[in-house]
Amino acid sequence: MEQKSILVTFAGGDAGIWRVERMETLRGLPLPLVSRITVIEGGDLPLVRKSVWSLRGITSEERYVRRAEHEMLVSRQPSLGRPGATCAALIPIRKSQEWWQFSHDERREIFEEQSHHIAIGLKYLPAIGRRLLHCRDLGEPFDFLTWFEYSPAAAGEFEELVTKLRRAREWTFVDREVDIRLRRD
Amino acid sequence: MEQKSILVTFAGGDAGIWRVERMETLRGLPLPLVSRITVIEGGDLPLVRKSVWSLRGITSEERYVRRAEHEMLVSRQPSLGRPGATCAALIPIRKSQEWWQFSHDERREIFEEQSHHIAIGLKYLPAIGRRLLHCRDLGEPFDFLTWFEYSPAAAGEFEELVTKLRRAREWTFVDREVDIRLRRD
Repeated sequence: MEQKSILVTFAGGDAGIWRVERMETLRGLPLPLVSRITVIEGGDLPLVRKSVWSLRGITSEERYVRRAEHEMLVSRQPSLGRPGATCAALIPIRKSQEWWQFSHDERREIFEEQSHHIAIGLKYLPAIGRRLLHCRDLGEPFDFLTWFEYSPAAAGEFEELVTKLRRAREWTFVDREVDIRLRRD
Repeated sequence: MEQKSILVTFAGGDAGIWRVERMETLRGLPLPLVSRITVIEGGDLPLVRKSVWSLRGITSEERYVRRAEHEMLVSRQPSLGRPGATCAALIPIRKSQEWWQFSHDERREIFEEQSHHIAIGLKYLPAIGRRLLHCRDLGEPFDFLTWFEYSPAAAGEFEELVTKLRRAREWTFVDREVDIRLRRD
């Protein structure tokens, strides 16, 4: 859990240190193809104006993670921007109306007890760093922006991680998903 | 739980059907005094530009309410805008960093098992209609905007309700609170 909410903007266009290697739409509407992505903490209006698209999200309070899980995550998770972590993935997702109509206990049950989202993520720490940004309440086209950073050596593990998450029941409630793979210059 | 998120703007100034009867700062920084408040679903930039202040919030997914509690709330809660409900209260609140650093299970424990927030609210339904708007993730000065509507006959019950909530442990984590009481023309 971060101390304070941070707004993060991902600007897709032809600028930025993250070069797009692949953009794949898994469900729902695609995003226009771009060659580079800039990650901006806070807003940078001139840069956003020059981009093809921009997606904004905010670090927010944890919605499902319990204290014991939180402690395990914190003890294992690496910081972003590690020198060797030259691979990244930006995976914006949206969940269905059905998901959002569940009560909190039902969402938690699907998220962890049925889909083991936290437990799966933990297995790949510290190899795969991640940051979850919330954007549903910002009136954005997606509900979450998930960001992952890892070394080229961990690329196979990353494929395993996303494959496991996508096979889980939680993912049946994902109705828009774009998978963008990046390499840092 | 509402079907879709709705952005609601409260514009404080000298316009609107809600006349301010009293504004009281209970904790933290006050809000400038105004004589009237307009409630706008969605945004209305010209109106907001003419206001002294404006506060925005969004209906969002429930964060602590469980399915059984949700069903009870829905079965009893009245709609907003009832003809006889000519009294209203707008109570913007902010919670401390300490609150937001708790994990979800800890927040739920304080919110309901210790403070009985849902159970207290249920006792005053359907007399006191309410709507909770989230604004922490919007970069607003408060975390929540709570809105209540009730008839003059239920004014005593409303005082009881807010007194009970303010005495609960949950309220020790409120670090800014302004209580604005209104009458509809």
